[in-house]
Amino acid sequence: MRTVPFDGRETNHLAQQPFGQIPFLSDGDLEMFESGAGLLHLARKAESLMPRDPAGEVQTVQWTIAALNSIEMVTVPWWFLEVTGAENNGLSDWAKNRLGQLEKVLREREWLVADRFTVADLLMADVLRVAKLRSYGDRPASEAYVTRVTDRPAFKKAHADQLAHFAAADRSR
Amino acid sequence: MRTVPFDGRETNHLAQQPFGQIPFLSDGDLEMFESGAGLLHLARKAESLMPRDPAGEVQTVQWTIAALNSIEMVTVPWWFLEVTGAENNGLSDWAKNRLGQLEKVLREREWLVADRFTVADLLMADVLRVAKLRSYGDRPASEAYVTRVTDRPAFKKAHADQLAHFAAADRSR
Repeated sequence: MRTVPFDGRETNHLAQQPFGQIPFLSDGDLEMFESGAGLLHLARKAESLMPRDPAGEVQTVQWTIAALNSIEMVTVPWWFLEVTGAENNGLSDWAKNRLGQLEKVLREREWLVADRFTVADLLMADVLRVAKLRSYGDRPASEAYVTRVTDRPAFKKAHADQLAHFAAADRSR
Repeated sequence: MRTVPFDGRETNHLAQQPFGQIPFLSDGDLEMFESGAGLLHLARKAESLMPRDPAGEVQTVQWTIAALNSIEMVTVPWWFLEVTGAENNGLSDWAKNRLGQLEKVLREREWLVADRFTVADLLMADVLRVAKLRSYGDRPASEAYVTRVTDRPAFKKAHADQLAHFAAADRSR
């Protein structure tokens, strides 16, 4: 893992990432932005992130895209309006509806695909674990799901490593 | 192409698509929802939609996800607030910013990936061709890009076929 300083971002980051977002993944000669693209790239290389049979692969891609385009497409703008102090958040009903539809799915299964952890769970739990979202409404199956994914030792280690990396980068400024 | 009637959607559609959206793709034994997942599935089968070299493939996935998660994630909720009559659309600055970043990219190239049409263009142009979005601000490179993609004979044929299919389905109700 590597971070680039916020100062100088015009040349060190925006030249490669037109939307100024993170993360950015380099793998040998290959370079890519978009979390979803990086995750799908890693998933193609690691069976621990995606089953190797065609149906398992298709469903993993499907739920990865659902996290990005059916859930996050509503929850991130909803969150944005919340934190920027919108008086009436015009996305509330839509967000409630989508999260309710996902709650129904998660009532019936522990993991999104093939009864096992995949990269789709990693992304979906990351989309759902936003504090404001978790405290908005009552969705016990979704809540248990977020706990299930974020309690995995791999998640805890990655999370701790990232915070340590940020702390070290701050100290060295 | 097949459509299912809106009446009876609880059993004929929602059972397979928890968010009630279209499209839904069947390919032999494989079934999937999410436009992005269906497009990436087809792209893996057709070089006309995605180059076969690793860098071309990675960039096609990257720009497909960018259309879904960096552009549409802002423009669709922005559009939703517009059409539901929000007085102050709290997503306007963000939408303007993202579309401006994309305009800069499209000033420099005709197609998003590898100097040729890919599935990423198909999706990005579909995201951008929404009338309300096109008339919001002035982005000549994006406008020329949408025209370039939607003027392709394959787009025109698919569009005409879909409208004819809807018209026939309406007549047979």
